[in-house]
Amino acid sequence: MPLVQITMLAGRTADQKRKLVQRITDAMEQEAGARRDAIVVTFNEVSKESYASGGVLMADKNK
Amino acid sequence: MPLVQITMLAGRTADQKRKLVQRITDAMEQEAGARRDAIVVTFNEVSKESYASGGVLMADKNK
Amino acid sequence: MPLVQITMLAGRTADQKRKLVQRITDAMEQEAGARRDAIVVTFNEVSKESYASGGVLMADKNK
Amino acid sequence: MPLVQITMLAGRTADQKRKLVQRITDAMEQEAGARRDAIVVTFNEVSKESYASGGVLMADKNK
Amino acid sequence: MPLVQITMLAGRTADQKRKLVQRITDAMEQEAGARRDAIVVTFNEVSKESYASGGVLMADKNK
Amino acid sequence: MPLVQITMLAGRTADQKRKLVQRITDAMEQEAGARRDAIVVTFNEVSKESYASGGVLMADKNK
Repeated sequence: MPLVQITMLAGRTADQKRKLVQRITDAMEQEAGARRDAIVVTFNEVSKESYASGGVLMADKNK
Repeated sequence: MPLVQITMLAGRTADQKRKLVQRITDAMEQEAGARRDAIVVTFNEVSKESYASGGVLMADKNK
Repeated sequence: MPLVQITMLAGRTADQKRKLVQRITDAMEQEAGARRDAIVVTFNEVSKESYASGGVLMADKNK
Repeated sequence: MPLVQITMLAGRTADQKRKLVQRITDAMEQEAGARRDAIVVTFNEVSKESYASGGVLMADKNK
Repeated sequence: MPLVQITMLAGRTADQKRKLVQRITDAMEQEAGARRDAIVVTFNEVSKESYASGGVLMADKNK
Repeated sequence: MPLVQITMLAGRTADQKRKLVQRITDAMEQEAGARRDAIVVTFNEVSKESYASGGVLMADKNK
């Protein structure tokens, strides 16, 4: 009954999310023995001004 | 001092959220003994393309 | 299909969690129109050294 | 630079987690175009008294 | 390799986020001994109808 | 009224957390204009078998 919550930059297509959901659900079912119906996957999409690594916003990385 | 974080599909009205907040805060206060002022409730609303169960996006469920 | 994730200090009994789960699930079903089977509630319990408000750890509040 | 945060019942082995991490990281890299080094996966393991669906704690499901 | 996830009301500028990221990353590096490159900070911004304390939505607080 | 949720490897002392809480609360108050009393900071500590980057568990990184 796992929850898989993904935080990533906005911009992926529905089809990319569809494939991610399928592969991650397969992995949870096959490797963790979870019941397929009970696996939930959510996407939390953030802007480049709301995600930073190493102390630098993504919005400032390509400057 | 509990935090209650709710992830759900977008589309609920402010009044639905208002009632959820009241009932959930009441429950936390009465059953968990939390101080009312310190109970925080947040809603994280996602689209049908950002929520999946059983390996299928909500956007694909009614097809 | 809401997820309700609760962060609170450790120390509540299983029976307290049971009652919280029932009341919160009732609220989500009745106020948000969620399907009961699809409502997930999780508890993330933290120690007094892992929770702070107003800049002060809970472990330091009663000193 | 995605974060993948997994909440599941405790009890999986390190080897199960290792395989989950590999497959989920592969999926994020190949389907979402994420840079491999920047993909983070975390597991948040909860007890049967801290996870409920349909208004019932996992600890009460097999009774 | 810490993740720092901030939930707050929408409305802060990019420059406010930039300064928060710098100071929080500095603190994680200097006080927790984390490697700077591995520190991730994300902002999850919510509306006044999606954040409540004490049982009252922020949207209802100034009425 | 921000929530700051930190996921990191277990092993930091209470004093390290105390200093992190002070500095992060200061930053939220001074840069984001948040009311000090309303700032919550939580730590979610995970083991080396529950945290991975680049597809590799922390537990496997030093081998």
